[in-house]
Amino acid sequence: MSGKLTYKQSGVDTIEAQSFVSDISSHVKRTQQARKLCNAFGLFAAAYDLSSYKEPVMVTGTDGVGTKSEILFQMDMIEEAGKDLVAMNVNDILTTGGDPLLFLDYLGISSLEMERTRITRLVAGMCDYLESCNCILAGGETAEMPGVVPAGMIEMAGFSIGCVEKSEMIDPSQLEEGDVLIGYPSDSFHANGWSLVRRVLEQEPDLLTRDEMISLLAPTRLYHDVVTDMRALKVVPRAYAHITGGGLPENLERFLGDRGSDLTIPYWNHPAAQKVLNFVDAEDRFHTFNMGIGWVSIVKPADVEAALKAGPGGSVIGTLRDGKGITVRVAQ
Amino acid sequence: MSGKLTYKQSGVDTIEAQSFVSDISSHVKRTQQARKLCNAFGLFAAAYDLSSYKEPVMVTGTDGVGTKSEILFQMDMIEEAGKDLVAMNVNDILTTGGDPLLFLDYLGISSLEMERTRITRLVAGMCDYLESCNCILAGGETAEMPGVVPAGMIEMAGFSIGCVEKSEMIDPSQLEEGDVLIGYPSDSFHANGWSLVRRVLEQEPDLLTRDEMISLLAPTRLYHDVVTDMRALKVVPRAYAHITGGGLPENLERFLGDRGSDLTIPYWNHPAAQKVLNFVDAEDRFHTFNMGIGWVSIVKPADVEAALKAGPGGSVIGTLRDGKGITVRVAQ
Repeated sequence: MSGKLTYKQSGVDTIEAQSFVSDISSHVKRTQQARKLCNAFGLFAAAYDLSSYKEPVMVTGTDGVGTKSEILFQMDMIEEAGKDLVAMNVNDILTTGGDPLLFLDYLGISSLEMERTRITRLVAGMCDYLESCNCILAGGETAEMPGVVPAGMIEMAGFSIGCVEKSEMIDPSQLEEGDVLIGYPSDSFHANGWSLVRRVLEQEPDLLTRDEMISLLAPTRLYHDVVTDMRALKVVPRAYAHITGGGLPENLERFLGDRGSDLTIPYWNHPAAQKVLNFVDAEDRFHTFNMGIGWVSIVKPADVEAALKAGPGGSVIGTLRDGKGITVRVAQ
Repeated sequence: MSGKLTYKQSGVDTIEAQSFVSDISSHVKRTQQARKLCNAFGLFAAAYDLSSYKEPVMVTGTDGVGTKSEILFQMDMIEEAGKDLVAMNVNDILTTGGDPLLFLDYLGISSLEMERTRITRLVAGMCDYLESCNCILAGGETAEMPGVVPAGMIEMAGFSIGCVEKSEMIDPSQLEEGDVLIGYPSDSFHANGWSLVRRVLEQEPDLLTRDEMISLLAPTRLYHDVVTDMRALKVVPRAYAHITGGGLPENLERFLGDRGSDLTIPYWNHPAAQKVLNFVDAEDRFHTFNMGIGWVSIVKPADVEAALKAGPGGSVIGTLRDGKGITVRVAQ
């Protein structure tokens, strides 16, 4: 050995990286049909023109898929992991009344050569969801970190940016006693609380059939349909909430201030989720999982009838009262 | 054991998470002095008002610190890791001519209880750099992933957003033959190429003293000073480049199209970096590391004199010629 090392010898292959960019380019293009970046993909930063907005307010957030990713990868549900990553981020943007415009992903892997097929599938899944809500995959970083990321693992972080006209921004400070909470069904647990799910499945390895496992791993629902319908129906909600870690109580209490509500939610007809919940502390389940309600719109009483038509499956789950705190019971 | 599990038993402590948010709040506040979010910290998404821009174009990117993070953590240089994360992202935003406005971080850890002190230091380091360039820490996600992230590891991804007036956006398509490339010194290798550095250090464990190691791990320089000075001097550059993975050749070729340049850069007076480079393939070093030039401004010939006064240490390293390709030689 001459003692002169190349970058490839250290486990990083930059030629492989360039081919990967061409693998994903057809997927990236799918996300740039109605909306387009105003500079080239692959520059140092992606640019998006907001000059058509009168008084733009940009909105942003970041999230990952947590430990759900490990089970998704074990089950080879790679595309679903991409959808989860998008939904966990885009739903947060939607709570502001904003349009999701741009999405970026950060993927940490041990070897691009080994992971190229899987991360192309991951990006394909992301782009399925992004295309459906008209949001651009504006950039990303796929970091090869041999020795830092365990082999076979893909670390994922997502970032999204949206924009809303200042006059149309949803303002939870306008909430009033008597406003009505409408809940919309989730497709399963969202991408949170999976350390607890994994613990149950370790303790009860034969609890679920393969089909039940797949239904439990359904990607987080994208609530773009609800928000788009609300806009078409000309209902301006008082607030939206995306129900993730912390469940209904924490995700509503974070913006309710001195108000609260005693919620009654429908029984969650999800056999796989119910099997898991049987092994979870009766109180903790409501503070960890969405319990079947993944999205809440809070509207004025006069808007309830219209809001129930926004997206499939909405139902009234409570009304706002004075006094802090959210309680949740399941309808008999 | 009753078989009913709580979330805390599965390794995730939501109360600990709330206290962590209060630990970092004083740092977050430091980044919101001149600029402020227009909604509360801790909502589902952070909002920033762009209505003072005439024709706003938002610019965004994502990056991490790569395998440099592992050595930084081994050396307990936690604050420096936070600075690197910010600089790797904010420098990309600065290449567009935009102001960095918002930054978000995604941190993956195995246990918040174990890592709380270190990630508070990490956020403190991030906020030092963010405060210095007037960029808001707008949000973040600290994901507890027991069993997924190895104990003792912190996975980091950063994400930044800026904004620029459409008329002031830097447009590399305006580049002309004869334009002049000005290089600005780096403080060390940027946060890329460290798999190769680590390989050298494994092969030559006694190569560097502790002080040399610390100087090698200096955080990526934030080139906000150069860009701010350029603006004050009323120099509108044709292009900016942030020199990271791929070195000078790839980071310039990505936007130069059919033009190129034969660069002569000053000898890099960085003893620790030179010691490492001695063990790196003579060609590969220019395609992996910044070789002492971490930022390039390309300006019209008439603007050279003024541009050399922007930020410390700028020097002419070449001129644009027709014909693809960047070559780099070191001045004798």
